[in-house]
Amino acid sequence: MAETTEYDLIVIGGGPAGYAGAIRAGQLGKKVACIEMERAGGTCLNWGCIPTKALLKSADLYQKIKKSESFGISVKDVSFDFAKVMERSRGVATQMAKGVEFLFKKNKVDYIVGKAQVSAPGMVSVTEGEHKGKFFKTKNILIATGCKMRRIPGLEYDGVRVMTSREALANTKLPKSVIIVGAGAIGVEFAYFYNAFGTKVTLVEMLPQIVPVEDEEIAKTLHRSFEKQGIVIHTDTKCENFRVGADGVKVDLVKGDQKTEVEAELLLSAIGVVANVDGLLAGNVKPELEKNYLKVGDDYQTSIKGIYAAGDIIGPPWLAHVATFEAVSCVNGIFGHGKPKRVQKFPGCTYCQPQISSTGLTEKAAKEKKLDYKVGKFPFTASGKAVASADSEGFVKVITDAKTGEIYGAHIIGSEATELIAEYGLAIELEATVEEIHQTIHAHPTLSEAVMEAAAASLGEAIHI
Amino acid sequence: MAETTEYDLIVIGGGPAGYAGAIRAGQLGKKVACIEMERAGGTCLNWGCIPTKALLKSADLYQKIKKSESFGISVKDVSFDFAKVMERSRGVATQMAKGVEFLFKKNKVDYIVGKAQVSAPGMVSVTEGEHKGKFFKTKNILIATGCKMRRIPGLEYDGVRVMTSREALANTKLPKSVIIVGAGAIGVEFAYFYNAFGTKVTLVEMLPQIVPVEDEEIAKTLHRSFEKQGIVIHTDTKCENFRVGADGVKVDLVKGDQKTEVEAELLLSAIGVVANVDGLLAGNVKPELEKNYLKVGDDYQTSIKGIYAAGDIIGPPWLAHVATFEAVSCVNGIFGHGKPKRVQKFPGCTYCQPQISSTGLTEKAAKEKKLDYKVGKFPFTASGKAVASADSEGFVKVITDAKTGEIYGAHIIGSEATELIAEYGLAIELEATVEEIHQTIHAHPTLSEAVMEAAAASLGEAIHI
Repeated sequence: MAETTEYDLIVIGGGPAGYAGAIRAGQLGKKVACIEMERAGGTCLNWGCIPTKALLKSADLYQKIKKSESFGISVKDVSFDFAKVMERSRGVATQMAKGVEFLFKKNKVDYIVGKAQVSAPGMVSVTEGEHKGKFFKTKNILIATGCKMRRIPGLEYDGVRVMTSREALANTKLPKSVIIVGAGAIGVEFAYFYNAFGTKVTLVEMLPQIVPVEDEEIAKTLHRSFEKQGIVIHTDTKCENFRVGADGVKVDLVKGDQKTEVEAELLLSAIGVVANVDGLLAGNVKPELEKNYLKVGDDYQTSIKGIYAAGDIIGPPWLAHVATFEAVSCVNGIFGHGKPKRVQKFPGCTYCQPQISSTGLTEKAAKEKKLDYKVGKFPFTASGKAVASADSEGFVKVITDAKTGEIYGAHIIGSEATELIAEYGLAIELEATVEEIHQTIHAHPTLSEAVMEAAAASLGEAIHI
Repeated sequence: MAETTEYDLIVIGGGPAGYAGAIRAGQLGKKVACIEMERAGGTCLNWGCIPTKALLKSADLYQKIKKSESFGISVKDVSFDFAKVMERSRGVATQMAKGVEFLFKKNKVDYIVGKAQVSAPGMVSVTEGEHKGKFFKTKNILIATGCKMRRIPGLEYDGVRVMTSREALANTKLPKSVIIVGAGAIGVEFAYFYNAFGTKVTLVEMLPQIVPVEDEEIAKTLHRSFEKQGIVIHTDTKCENFRVGADGVKVDLVKGDQKTEVEAELLLSAIGVVANVDGLLAGNVKPELEKNYLKVGDDYQTSIKGIYAAGDIIGPPWLAHVATFEAVSCVNGIFGHGKPKRVQKFPGCTYCQPQISSTGLTEKAAKEKKLDYKVGKFPFTASGKAVASADSEGFVKVITDAKTGEIYGAHIIGSEATELIAEYGLAIELEATVEEIHQTIHAHPTLSEAVMEAAAASLGEAIHI
């Protein structure tokens, strides 16, 4: 039977959308619960963004140590304990998950561990876990169950020879060789990570470029850098005929009419995500879907009144920061705190080395839209800070309206690219021009000067190139 | 006798003001020369910002390697070759100086090595170096001779026991102990650097806090961090009675009515700068001065028509990026390319670890101005990226107009603080509000989220604290 207390909001899912939405409702003084079937923080915090960043930090450090001689530093017998690298990553995830639980308490969010189902508008039940069988009344429901890794049909994910990133994040044994299927952000991050620790990496992408959503020039630069690092890359290539044996996996790589067999100890598939909808909705609750994602309006409401959705469950771009923004915006809207806003502009980051980041249009998109655009580019080889840090690979590229200087898109590859994109993010949000960025004094010596110089370059006024 | 060609502009000094001004004039198609008495790039590039960043990179790496065990990485026998650390730094300076010479060529700037003197309005002579005795006619003169290190009166700077940062940057012998007089940016960077390599460091500051221009809370946090790192700090303390011996230097530290003697192998003085005016002006050329700096108007013109000045030579804040901006703005003005603008808003950075950066008003200044202000703060312990990188010391602090949310100042201490300040710089330049920063989606997981969360915190809407 239903619990007698009625919630103002029940959030289903405790990831970046769910926990942020629940906390925001708590901040607004609402009676709110968050039901999460695994651990607070969701995929991002437990099996995605956060633990991978911990792994990549170890990889970066290992690479830097190997180059320490040029900095006047000597080390002997550099080695690593891969299990400890993985263990630290799990520890970071645990620490952050506890942080979210603390925030739930602080903001008076009832945190319920269990699998939730929308029984009806205004009613949520728990179908698995210790609270199984409980029903909760609520004025509003926010579905934020996110996505899970998409799997290659017909292939058994045994967690030993075949994995998604999820299993790889718990795998304490470094493979001697790996085939990574899919060269999106997750694929390239794992390619960099494994390669940094000495694994023979084959990276396969069906589309013509790695990091397919990124600017072509950025993708080409990363491609060259990865090859220099020792990663074998196959673009325009499909994987067929997976054969999983006791010691490894064999796959046929098909490019045009060429077929090559590759073999590795491990196959990691990183071919995107699918919506977490299994068991989410009782049979009579049928919100409108779009390609299996929940369809929402400008206020994040589904086709059923009082049932909202935000984050990966409403479809692309499947980014944690977009999910958080959507959920907070949705909750603000539900409780009359400002008008909800659908997301148009957002940055994307990939944390391999060199890092890449972007926001807005690629040059190709600007061309396809037949925009009258200009490009400003500044290489990190011309940045004093980058040279002093011996980190001068890459460049900043900005695409602007040829007439007004408004920024259509910005693309960065290089050290700290993922931090540098924030300034362009704000600039685009504020509809600032490259002239305004150029007229803003940037601290010397910083990499952020390259953000300014790329803007200046689009005006023909960069000093250092 | 005067060379027959007349220049549109002669720039005296090849530092961040001088070389940028000269290059800008070249870009505008003007006939321009830059006369520099040492090496292109000036103090910043040869004896300041750039070589110190190279040193600090080695120090950071050495510190990180010592902590690598926690990242799952083992190293044995970590050691360093201090001479090689210094040598790399000199190499970086040389590389960047050559870069400036390349830019001179590319932009058709005549680069003349020698000491220049303003003989008269429209006439510059070379008084030292291979071009000694030559006179050059020019329509405009831009003086950008910068500053040199201030010295403690009566103390002999022998480059062995007593140094400024200039000599320290060429000193290939790591001192066992050092007394650093002055805890501004240069003093604290050297304190961090020497301490990182095992030198016993005593840092002495006359004023009540280290990094005196920074926000009190930031200074306190850095003070605690430095003490934890093993640096001995004396604030509110004067140095008296310097005794330089063959093996070291003894100094009396005077705090109130207490006097303590300290001794070290090396004394590094970092007590500010003085204007480079010696021999700069012929006897009959007397532009108005202000505390020994050249006084300029809004167009950077001195009291003598056709003689302009920019950079450190016109007084504080003695920052390379401000100098560059001023010189470019001045040159644009001279040649009718936009209205020159005097600098009001600029960032400041200090590259010790934790790094610090700031722009705009400190909280104390906001209080003194009796502004109705709010503070938003976000600690890096609550940042997923910082925790994943094991770099969670410090915080972001933003000071805003309590009513409008306009940003009065921003202050950051922590990893990559010097890069993160750029976004606040743009925000202040564009008179953006904290609400606008809060509404801008920042990539997850990045440290730049802390910039957004501090903004949100000032509105009571931060999710992660």
